[in-house]
Amino acid sequence: MASKNGKLALLGGEKAVTLQALDRWETMTEEMVQRVRQMVEKGDISTQGEKIAQEVEEGFAKFLGANYAVSQHNGTSTMWASYFALGVGPGDEVLHPDFTWICSFGPVVYLGARPVFCEIDPKTFLIDPADIERRITPRTKAISVVHWGGNVCDLDPIMEVANRHGIPVIEDCSHAHGASYDGKKVGTIGAIGGFSFQGVPGKGKPISGGECGMVATMDRRLYERVLLFGHVGRTDLMDKLQDPAHRRLAPYGLGLNFRANPLGLAIAQVQLARVREQNEKRWAYVQALNRGLEEIPGIDPLYIYPKAQPAGWYGGLQARYRPEDLGGLPRETYCKALQAEGIGVRPGAYSDAFGPVTGARHIPYHLVPPYSRGFDFYTHGRGPLWEGYEGYAPGDYPQTRQALARMLQLPVLTDPEAGAVEQLLEGFRKVAENYRALF
Amino acid sequence: MASKNGKLALLGGEKAVTLQALDRWETMTEEMVQRVRQMVEKGDISTQGEKIAQEVEEGFAKFLGANYAVSQHNGTSTMWASYFALGVGPGDEVLHPDFTWICSFGPVVYLGARPVFCEIDPKTFLIDPADIERRITPRTKAISVVHWGGNVCDLDPIMEVANRHGIPVIEDCSHAHGASYDGKKVGTIGAIGGFSFQGVPGKGKPISGGECGMVATMDRRLYERVLLFGHVGRTDLMDKLQDPAHRRLAPYGLGLNFRANPLGLAIAQVQLARVREQNEKRWAYVQALNRGLEEIPGIDPLYIYPKAQPAGWYGGLQARYRPEDLGGLPRETYCKALQAEGIGVRPGAYSDAFGPVTGARHIPYHLVPPYSRGFDFYTHGRGPLWEGYEGYAPGDYPQTRQALARMLQLPVLTDPEAGAVEQLLEGFRKVAENYRALF
Repeated sequence: MASKNGKLALLGGEKAVTLQALDRWETMTEEMVQRVRQMVEKGDISTQGEKIAQEVEEGFAKFLGANYAVSQHNGTSTMWASYFALGVGPGDEVLHPDFTWICSFGPVVYLGARPVFCEIDPKTFLIDPADIERRITPRTKAISVVHWGGNVCDLDPIMEVANRHGIPVIEDCSHAHGASYDGKKVGTIGAIGGFSFQGVPGKGKPISGGECGMVATMDRRLYERVLLFGHVGRTDLMDKLQDPAHRRLAPYGLGLNFRANPLGLAIAQVQLARVREQNEKRWAYVQALNRGLEEIPGIDPLYIYPKAQPAGWYGGLQARYRPEDLGGLPRETYCKALQAEGIGVRPGAYSDAFGPVTGARHIPYHLVPPYSRGFDFYTHGRGPLWEGYEGYAPGDYPQTRQALARMLQLPVLTDPEAGAVEQLLEGFRKVAENYRALF
Repeated sequence: MASKNGKLALLGGEKAVTLQALDRWETMTEEMVQRVRQMVEKGDISTQGEKIAQEVEEGFAKFLGANYAVSQHNGTSTMWASYFALGVGPGDEVLHPDFTWICSFGPVVYLGARPVFCEIDPKTFLIDPADIERRITPRTKAISVVHWGGNVCDLDPIMEVANRHGIPVIEDCSHAHGASYDGKKVGTIGAIGGFSFQGVPGKGKPISGGECGMVATMDRRLYERVLLFGHVGRTDLMDKLQDPAHRRLAPYGLGLNFRANPLGLAIAQVQLARVREQNEKRWAYVQALNRGLEEIPGIDPLYIYPKAQPAGWYGGLQARYRPEDLGGLPRETYCKALQAEGIGVRPGAYSDAFGPVTGARHIPYHLVPPYSRGFDFYTHGRGPLWEGYEGYAPGDYPQTRQALARMLQLPVLTDPEAGAVEQLLEGFRKVAENYRALF
């Protein structure tokens, strides 16, 4: 179908998108407001493992089909606890994609280990299974994979390599609550999984409670190590620990507190009750949009591995720009033209939203200080990124750099207004048909 | 003045305390409920350094007279960030009192360093300045002092030893918001200070926001290192960093997130506005109670160092039991008799409240696993408490063990009902005069 209105909005034409509100999905609901109000009135704002944490942990484990879940104060600490649970320590290496969000591997260094980056697959922006094996050394202690943006890593080849080398896989599922691979929910396929609950419902992580998160695992030993790591003084610790060596450490555990704030957990709990519905609605939207994009020059919809079922989504729906279809039109100009049509498309990664504030752009991690050149974390020439650390050169991950240069973020709608998808597609089509006017 | 009514309540007599509610101070206020409600309605529940964090940081720095304050997700992370800021790392030792709360030094191990315990002063239950110097080795990187229960450590001799050896002092002020020494607020006297804001207003820490905390310092370099450590992606990071080596690391910092939850900060902010008033009222109560206790056998009121002005308080007002005055009456029996009179006195430390749930009692840290015998933190025989770690023997800290055996926790009232202090003193007097009936 050809576009009806030829003049681009960027050049003074009418916008393709005329609907006022594209998405009807509620963000903060009255139920959340009332739950929080009641808790504050009762002074139920600090917890040592009591009711709300237990409830949300049980509900989330059930949702995933996981044996165990532990609430944490944020997504970073879910990954920290997961690395710790697996015994990552000084001298170890952890494989991690060269592009995601820095907190996913940040804690590795604070356990005395080094992150070792892997290329991403340009079709999915997820860790390239083919690149994992060549990065494995005798020091590799864990393989960290990130189901970035709600799309699911190709876990069959990843688990095959990991199992063959006897290296556990950590899944960062912070964008992918409810996503699955071969019928199993992510976070239950590798040894352990971390889920951020950061942000605002409907606009933040797939389950958002302000600042909190959840670890999931099928493995009792890892579960107990997560509890020991960050749940000092949790009053139900003794009920949960079975290993005598662990029980000996109660009630203090290992002297840290990564407890979630109960108000955040309450907001997350309200969302948990609707996350299946949210995921189904978003998937219907993603399918409809991607189907339409298949036929429009200038853009490739995100590739999904055959056994993967994406879910959750955060920061946008990724797609790949194809400047070769549009006479080499710069990606920034393409996005500006789409934005003028009323489509919230951004070049690059979600975290480029920091750009206007900080002047920084999302770049692959091998180029980010302190990983690129090393950093003296503990002063006096100490820490895993100092002595003998070689760092990285700009050309080390060509596949990742090329992939990021094509990345686009498209809006994710949960409950689109009637005709919304059609108007979005109309905008993409209009820009593709009239791009020459932008030169 | 002799007690009027001779028969102990434990033995069927009338209670000394007949007032229904001893304390009139409000805990959760309507202002807190409304602030939180408004924030949840607006979806203002997750932050990257914006308005609420900045406001509370500025307000708290002003309250202390500190140059800088940084909000953190809890008290543990304030200490973690403080140790990191000072460059504590692998191979280092950190001096810390053998009795406080485990999270105060727990993070030391996660920076690769070892805690080295010091005796406490039996008069105050605070680090014994005389014991510090003999524990210093070439590896000592910091001296951590805790103003436990709101009483203030004897900072003159501590700072003298520290300065002579060129070792920075960290103040854990988690119970002592607004306390001072020689006219200066604690948290601004050592190099850096950590404040927990954990718990429920009026019943928790002196400023309680559920789960959050604050670091304070006079030193710009330490301030910048705290920001780098745990404030990844904070959108005002670039405005706050001056050191070019630090600015190069923005906006990611060092890849960790220790951000406070905004709802907790809002609750804390309401309390901050009244903390001076709260401290003044509590101090009037403490003075009145302690003056009365001076004349009653069986108990010594808490000693306060000459330049110290206690404030805040948490978990109780400490006092020392003197069984020698009461024919060797066991401390537990003494407390039961007082409880029967209507006085909430407990033997031991505040954290013995875990006892009924976990079966554990508060013990000095040289007896707590993993510190007593070592622990293989990172598995495979690694971590600061494993290779070459000697641990401690039960007899290593006789002064601390003797002090803890006499510790009592008395109720802290903020706004006592008229006659409350008199009734409490009447109860202490009655038990002291009639203790023989308890044998």
